Order: sequence, then C-alpha cells, then structure tokens
Amino acid sequence: METDFTAQIIKQVITAWAASNKLISKFFNEYEDAYYFNEVAPGRNRAIYLLGHLIAVNHSMLPMFNLGERLYPELENPFLKTPDKTSADTLTIAELRQYWETLNTTLAANFDNMQTQDWMDRHTRVSEQDFAIEPTRNKLNVLIGRTNHQQYHYGQLTLLIQKEPAI
Amino acid sequence: METDFTAQIIKQVITAWAASNKLISKFFNEYEDAYYFNEVAPGRNRAIYLLGHLIAVNHSMLPMFNLGERLYPELENPFLKTPDKTSADTLTIAELRQYWETLNTTLAANFDNMQTQDWMDRHTRVSEQDFAIEPTRNKLNVLIGRTNHQQYHYGQLTLLIQKEPAI
Repeated sequence: METDFTAQIIKQVITAWAASNKLISKFFNEYEDAYYFNEVAPGRNRAIYLLGHLIAVNHSMLPMFNLGERLYPELENPFLKTPDKTSADTLTIAELRQYWETLNTTLAANFDNMQTQDWMDRHTRVSEQDFAIEPTRNKLNVLIGRTNHQQYHYGQLTLLIQKEPAI
Repeated sequence: METDFTAQIIKQVITAWAASNKLISKFFNEYEDAYYFNEVAPGRNRAIYLLGHLIAVNHSMLPMFNLGERLYPELENPFLKTPDKTSADTLTIAELRQYWETLNTTLAANFDNMQTQDWMDRHTRVSEQDFAIEPTRNKLNVLIGRTNHQQYHYGQLTLLIQKEPAI
C-alpha cells in the first residue's frame, strides 16, 4: 500500500512536469517565428531567449541524473551563462523548437525507466557526504525545482499573449 | 523503507510550496506600498492584484482539504472572479500582506498535522466516484498545482524588479 503511494507520488510529480512542458510547447507552436523575438515586457528577455534558456536548464537533468551528457552544450553560453541580447541569434525558432521536443522526448523516455530508488537517490551535483546529511537533495527534488523554474518563465511568456490564458 | 519515502516526498512537495511562499513574501516586503500598484507589464495585472489573487486561490485549499472555510471570502470577487482594475481598491497592501502571512501560517500548521493518508485522499471538489477512477486527484496534487500556479505569477512579479533575481 505505502509502496504504491511512493510510485504514485513520483508519477504525479512527473505528470506536473509534463503538463508544464505541454504549455510551453503549445505557446511556441502557436505563432509565427517573428513573434518570439518580442520581449515579454519592455527591456526584458525575449521569448526566444526563454526557450533556449529552458532547454539549457532542463538538459542538465541528463548528467545530474546519470542519464548521459547534455544534448545541446552549445546553448549554455548564449542562453544560460549570458543574458539575452548579448549574443547573435545563431539558432532559429524552428531549431530551438526541435531541440525542445527532442529533449522532452529523451527525458520522458528516461524517466519512464527510472525506479523509485533512482528518484530518491542523490543527483550528481551533491556529494555522498552532503546527501547523507540532506537526503532530500535527490533527483525528484531537481525535477520539482525544474518544474517550478519553468512555470516561473511560463508566466512571463504568457504576457506576450494578447489575452492571458486562464490557468 | 518505502513508507519513509512517501513521507519524505510529501515533505519535499510541502517544502517547495513553502519556498515559493517565501519568495512571494520577500517580494511584497521589499518596496514601498505604492510600488505594488504598478502593472507587471504594460496593460497587465498590477502586483497588488496578483497578491490578492494568490491569497484567493490558495485559501481554497482549506475547504478542499477539509480544514475549514476560506479565510477571506471577500477576496473572491475582486481578485478571482473579476479582472484587475475593475473593482475599487478597498484593501491596502498592508492588509493583504497580513492576510497572506496569516493564510500561510494557517496552511502550514494544518499541513504539519496531515498524515500520508490525508494527502493521498481525494480533495473535496472531486467525487468519490471520480476519485476511484483517477486516484491522482488527491490533496497533494492540489498543492503541486498551487505551487506551479504561484511560480507562474511570481515570474510575472519579478518583471517589476529593477534587476531580475537569479533563480
């Protein structure tokens, strides 16, 4: 009975993450490419930057979960280490959209194969010693954090929409 | 072993919610009251509206979790059922800030007393029949959803900050 709960809660956390991904996907499939070069608010990040940023933040779950290397290391500099509008736009919306979908498919396939023990184990950025002290620094916590980070930026992206969606 | 995991994951979800609350509290304690009457982006919601909105959305967890009535039903109309700038501002920032803190303290105290079975049980907006079909429609899922909703609006609030915080 309790075992079922653990697996179920992990599934609920994954479902919340997937639901957030779907919102982002919908947003970036709704308009003409030029639209995503707009800033979400005056002087703020452009939508294209936030898409690259989410990919660059999320693909780090692969090494953090011992699932392989980051898929798009070339995104780290323009979308993570430097602010928007400081690098040339070398990637198109179509390319970033494809990266986004490939990353989500890759993560989802890996998550499907992870067992409870994997989720509750430490991620690779925390040492065994630190994890012994703080056992909540597990992979599931990273996914919760990534979902919250993504929702934070989704709230900004929707400011571009003519009429904000009810969520 | 597995039982410990369930309790631990629930705690992690509550911790993520509390961390989000803390960010909102910090934001609304940082500036002069007049600041919160600014729109987060041109023509969008004002920060004061979003604070009232978060209270109005979050206090519904009390009846949904069978913990009592909503604390501030008078917020439903101006901050939930109608858009910003369609009602007079009858509450001050100081009052809303106090409501926000009281609500969070109330929810946190109640959450502390909830057991695993409570979290995994249905919330009151889903019928027993529907819950039998979809057992993920439990109280924990509501809290996950509320956290994601709050982060969505927190992302918008931070657009008001001179320099966006790194999160």
